[in-house]
Amino acid sequence: MREPQSLFLTEDSLGIVTDLYQLTMAAGYFEHGVHDITTFELFVRQLPENRSYLITAGIEQAVHYLTHIKFSEDNIQFLRRLPAFKHVSYEFFKYLQNFTFSGTVYAMPEGTIAFSDEPLIRVTAPIIEAQLVETYLLSIINFQTLIATKSSRIVYAAKGREVIDFGTRRAHGPQAGILAARSSFIGGCSSTSNVFAAYTLGIPAVGTIAHSWVMAFENELDSFHKFYETFPDYTVLLIDTYDTLTGAQHAAMISNKIKGVRIDSGDVLKLSKEVRKILDAKGLQHVKIIASGDLHENRIDDLLKNNAPIDSFGVGTEMVTSKDAPALGGVYKLVEQGHKGKIIPKMKLSKGKVTYPGKKQVYRITDTVGNFIKDVIGLEGENIEGIPLLIPVIKDGKPCYNLPTIHDIQRTASENLIHLPNPFKYLTDAETYPVYKSHGLEVKKQEAERIVRDMNM
Amino acid sequence: MREPQSLFLTEDSLGIVTDLYQLTMAAGYFEHGVHDITTFELFVRQLPENRSYLITAGIEQAVHYLTHIKFSEDNIQFLRRLPAFKHVSYEFFKYLQNFTFSGTVYAMPEGTIAFSDEPLIRVTAPIIEAQLVETYLLSIINFQTLIATKSSRIVYAAKGREVIDFGTRRAHGPQAGILAARSSFIGGCSSTSNVFAAYTLGIPAVGTIAHSWVMAFENELDSFHKFYETFPDYTVLLIDTYDTLTGAQHAAMISNKIKGVRIDSGDVLKLSKEVRKILDAKGLQHVKIIASGDLHENRIDDLLKNNAPIDSFGVGTEMVTSKDAPALGGVYKLVEQGHKGKIIPKMKLSKGKVTYPGKKQVYRITDTVGNFIKDVIGLEGENIEGIPLLIPVIKDGKPCYNLPTIHDIQRTASENLIHLPNPFKYLTDAETYPVYKSHGLEVKKQEAERIVRDMNM
Repeated sequence: MREPQSLFLTEDSLGIVTDLYQLTMAAGYFEHGVHDITTFELFVRQLPENRSYLITAGIEQAVHYLTHIKFSEDNIQFLRRLPAFKHVSYEFFKYLQNFTFSGTVYAMPEGTIAFSDEPLIRVTAPIIEAQLVETYLLSIINFQTLIATKSSRIVYAAKGREVIDFGTRRAHGPQAGILAARSSFIGGCSSTSNVFAAYTLGIPAVGTIAHSWVMAFENELDSFHKFYETFPDYTVLLIDTYDTLTGAQHAAMISNKIKGVRIDSGDVLKLSKEVRKILDAKGLQHVKIIASGDLHENRIDDLLKNNAPIDSFGVGTEMVTSKDAPALGGVYKLVEQGHKGKIIPKMKLSKGKVTYPGKKQVYRITDTVGNFIKDVIGLEGENIEGIPLLIPVIKDGKPCYNLPTIHDIQRTASENLIHLPNPFKYLTDAETYPVYKSHGLEVKKQEAERIVRDMNM
Repeated sequence: MREPQSLFLTEDSLGIVTDLYQLTMAAGYFEHGVHDITTFELFVRQLPENRSYLITAGIEQAVHYLTHIKFSEDNIQFLRRLPAFKHVSYEFFKYLQNFTFSGTVYAMPEGTIAFSDEPLIRVTAPIIEAQLVETYLLSIINFQTLIATKSSRIVYAAKGREVIDFGTRRAHGPQAGILAARSSFIGGCSSTSNVFAAYTLGIPAVGTIAHSWVMAFENELDSFHKFYETFPDYTVLLIDTYDTLTGAQHAAMISNKIKGVRIDSGDVLKLSKEVRKILDAKGLQHVKIIASGDLHENRIDDLLKNNAPIDSFGVGTEMVTSKDAPALGGVYKLVEQGHKGKIIPKMKLSKGKVTYPGKKQVYRITDTVGNFIKDVIGLEGENIEGIPLLIPVIKDGKPCYNLPTIHDIQRTASENLIHLPNPFKYLTDAETYPVYKSHGLEVKKQEAERIVRDMNM
């Protein structure tokens, strides 16, 4: 009888957490002696529907990956046995045995606001290394950026009320639940229900009871009393298991020390108002109302516009899957290649997927109080006013910056959002933030296009 | 300078990969001496839009979890320090030190076709154990079932042509990419680009080159030659980096041994026909055309209805995020509780979220050749014709079935899909498969409803 597989990632197998074509290309470059220093950039061509900005996230896990990637002996034996690698020399597998990432990486710090076409991370390394890491970088940055962005929209809609991540059970696996807890905290959530995320990241964990608790005792009132006995300072009671208004009356009978009640079903707008009245009539003005159940930014906006007396929102599925736009289409493209002492700008001309060549930097122009006016995507080193957003995070394979805490990152995101004018933050029909390409970049593009056409057409 | 965090799951921390409320409830039950044997069932109330069936997946990882869950000493210290647990006794944390899952679990084997309201997995255990595992079970089964279902739709649309998983870069993190490779293979994909998935699961890995390979050489033709030199038996050339038709002509110049060409952009219908002509004119009828780029079941259906001469489809984002329906709303509900020698059926009455009580079994009624006619959800042990779909997978904490290989599971799914009549498989406007509740179950529900109302209203 074989053992069930966990499929967990482990540090010693990070080299093969990639697409096979990265490894066939690696072998091909190796066999042809191509070890040119190249630069790749990760960017998003088009923001998802209804998104007017991105909150960057996932850089820390990207740095972990780049500074730990290697191939285990078993991984290498596996690759050697693949029929496709039949003609590949022993030296290539020897090379994989000693593989580490030796390149230099620039990235926007996590919590930065970014827009389409702006490089979020820029990798300069020997071509095999820079290429191999594409799949993992895309996967970890696409997802965390997607969720940090979504959570910032939900937090914006909540107008200062707490938003709590309740999403692990509907995330794309338990690991995605942890990454979602991290990135939704970056986007502005106050806490998470995920204990592992709280443990590893140091963010607040919250949670009290499910319907099953209420059902496990003889009746609701008894179940409420029992919970209060064990958690007298942290009692939030779920009141909709049988009948929400009766549940509110039961909650009011427990103690004036209870902290809150939660409503998870039904007409939350109407129920929250009636529950508020029941609690207030018993002198429980300080007891909070928490709402949960298929909430998202538009629903929350709607509830608050109708004066729902809700103090906190528990948000799950819609946030951790970014349900209305569940993928971020980040791409990772070769933009420059050193070859025989020359630096050659690179671009592709595929229909609808043309890329800009050259090693780029993003310059943010703000007014005197720091409010964002516009961005310019230019060349690294080009003389452009504004704050350069890409900073060095890895130099020659070693981390070269002080990793911010998750609280620092949340603060960065929050301050950036304050400086992004409101019309760019509207939940629907937000304005498009002005992002320009520099003169230097346009000239570089024409130059590269000429080279490519001369060589290929 | 602190170390960057991977946030990888590890076996010794599985106990805390859960929602905090599972642990507050656990402490509450413990403090009140509640150790009743309970049964919880995981089911989906409503299938996502355009889904008419589910392909179950994720049971193997659920079994891994249930047979490995424990709390590390560090995890326990972390919980003890949480302010909420201030009044919880030392004995509870002592209990967590020795925590293992000792229950009995029934599940539909992976690759089973399931419908709404049918339990996919049923857990019977002391209440603390049965409750604690909810979050992880939902997360792993919801996601893999979601993707196996989506991939089966895409494979159906491809009408016998190969569908290849290309999705890791857009999955919800690298771990989700691996789970998606597994579950999309269960749903009928032929292979994956994900090397780690291929390595751990023994499924075929495929992939050759990206645009960057073509861009890294002086010109396209040279890049094609170079790849062929290293991989003469496995050459599939990506031909759309600069101009697809020129790319096809270049590919045709390499060797009649090349295996295929790939088109990743532009008007794939038109281009595939023109590329086919170019290849055929050079006697390359055996060279396959692979299409990729934002494909999904409806797009594939459309291409094939218009006679696109495409042999294989590389599918990414749309499949691994189940983009049109990116979450499966599985829930996990208390249905029965042993208390003082009696077995008490349990149900909730929350608006729109009423549950059926009692330990259930799903009975599938087929015709003489095995085609599915209808399902009946009844009570375990009820005398109902049909094949019971839930089988024991864990008994008293120990795995009690022979784990099928991934190829076995794929075959199970494929055979089940053959026996599901076509009208239930249409991509849009599929018919609703008939699922009935048994007389015994309806009687049990009335009984439970009476008990609940007497106790609570």
